[in-house]
Amino acid sequence: MLRLALAAVISATPICVFADPLPSWANTETRARIIDFVGAVTDPEGTDYVTPAARVAVFDNDGTLWSEQPVYFQLTFALDRLSEMAEADPSILTTPTLKAAAEGDLQAIVDGGHEALIEVLNASHSGVDVPDFQAAVADWLQTARHPDTGLPYDQMTYQPMVELLRYLRDEGFRTYIVSGGGLHFMRVFAEEAYGIPPEQVLGTYTDTTYEVTNGTPSIIKAPGIAFIDDKEGKPINIERTIGRRPILAAGNSDGDFAMLEWTTAGDGPRLGVLIHHTDAEREWAYDRESPIGKLADGLDKGSENGWVIVDMAQDWDRIYTGAE
Amino acid sequence: MLRLALAAVISATPICVFADPLPSWANTETRARIIDFVGAVTDPEGTDYVTPAARVAVFDNDGTLWSEQPVYFQLTFALDRLSEMAEADPSILTTPTLKAAAEGDLQAIVDGGHEALIEVLNASHSGVDVPDFQAAVADWLQTARHPDTGLPYDQMTYQPMVELLRYLRDEGFRTYIVSGGGLHFMRVFAEEAYGIPPEQVLGTYTDTTYEVTNGTPSIIKAPGIAFIDDKEGKPINIERTIGRRPILAAGNSDGDFAMLEWTTAGDGPRLGVLIHHTDAEREWAYDRESPIGKLADGLDKGSENGWVIVDMAQDWDRIYTGAE
Repeated sequence: MLRLALAAVISATPICVFADPLPSWANTETRARIIDFVGAVTDPEGTDYVTPAARVAVFDNDGTLWSEQPVYFQLTFALDRLSEMAEADPSILTTPTLKAAAEGDLQAIVDGGHEALIEVLNASHSGVDVPDFQAAVADWLQTARHPDTGLPYDQMTYQPMVELLRYLRDEGFRTYIVSGGGLHFMRVFAEEAYGIPPEQVLGTYTDTTYEVTNGTPSIIKAPGIAFIDDKEGKPINIERTIGRRPILAAGNSDGDFAMLEWTTAGDGPRLGVLIHHTDAEREWAYDRESPIGKLADGLDKGSENGWVIVDMAQDWDRIYTGAE
Repeated sequence: MLRLALAAVISATPICVFADPLPSWANTETRARIIDFVGAVTDPEGTDYVTPAARVAVFDNDGTLWSEQPVYFQLTFALDRLSEMAEADPSILTTPTLKAAAEGDLQAIVDGGHEALIEVLNASHSGVDVPDFQAAVADWLQTARHPDTGLPYDQMTYQPMVELLRYLRDEGFRTYIVSGGGLHFMRVFAEEAYGIPPEQVLGTYTDTTYEVTNGTPSIIKAPGIAFIDDKEGKPINIERTIGRRPILAAGNSDGDFAMLEWTTAGDGPRLGVLIHHTDAEREWAYDRESPIGKLADGLDKGSENGWVIVDMAQDWDRIYTGAE
């Protein structure tokens, strides 16, 4: 009845109607809290006003901006790349782990733990200059398809989050990725997929070396991980690279806990957002027990910290950018 | 005579006269080359046009944007801070090096080499959270005066370079500092002195740790240098942090050689700029033999690389922002 009355008022009154900034978000409390926050920090007359320079918003990538199941997409890329490299030169497969990886035996990598993973990453992500590495990532994105959805991986971005990023930028925010994923890997698609330019992508990175060959300088990806942009590494990397404490942080796993904690502990208005994967039908449902994207601390303490917990099944009318 | 004729034409013709973007630069070939470069990359009809997103310009700080004699200003800050800390708690001076440093005995630090320097930096730059450290830097800038000029250190910025930074930004560039100086130190004054915000300051950094005390998270400066932003470290840090190869790089010492080399080896129009300290009267004159700001490779190879060598005595009508 109230709804009918409101509809009558709206249709009868010549008010200004703006385009919905978040069309893929359901009309829930979650959506309202986000819009209220953005309205508050951008209202120059309000007590919660934040200057544009300080409107920094940080987003995890895997599980927050695109899917991360059945494994992180970058690991799939690593196996595919290793397999392709081995076709050209099988002698690079110097260990059982690398042989298994080149055959796409994901379980062997999982069983091998951290060491196996590093071995695979070193073999597939180093000894190449950055532009050549990024060309390989771009090629892979063109051809590879996700085993369950059949979509290109960079079409498995979450349309509601793409809208949120655009909405924030329209409201004077600078949007950053702060992800455990590889810096050089993410920069290949972040601009087209999310509108986030290279200098606003923070991630895990290998060492690189500067080498001059026949007068031509290059930056080469070296073996070994120089910095892991996960857990406490996230606020540390944000402070180091951006030099400002964000006012909005979004993540989906306990790897994002410290980033949300540091962001929302700051003075003034702050928003923490956690994406809870609750939609087994349209995406995946997982949290406390998942080896990938484990979310336990966030569920235990997120609400008392005032964070918005997005229930993917309830709060999102649409999931993927690449599929209606 | 030509000059008079030109003046007559200018005063007689109703042409559009723009304000001089570089009023502190003498009317020399150096100035002309800079203006020609900027004109070329911003002319949408020209073959050298560069999109605004790719207009990245990087600047060394010590000796390029402000003075660096008789020692790097940050070292003076370190000694002053150590001395102040020791007044409150003399027991922190646990070694002869630290005792000498707290007494302002610069020669002892110089004689002690790299190890002495690290000792002094650890004692004066760690064990404090970033905001408190930066408050100490801000306090120091308020009160400390340079022994020779009597100026506050942040008034010993080069007015011609401040103008160049502003000119580039007016022409759609993003300007960055990429310096061997401390990241947290420089961010305190970079915005006010140069118009460069925190996220566009790259420098040497200590490790930091993320700590939560009574529910309050902080980022603490730890002992030890995690990354030295000098020599090959400069292009490596630029690639890592900005993710784009600059089209303009300015420096003054061989610590900047790799940055200029990498920048100017890229395709399309590029500009390398070296500040040559030639002005013993108004500033300092030094190059090949100087322990600070040594410039030898740059002088040997700069010209053949097409870099602009700024002759401070000839090319700058004015030196300091803080003194006419």
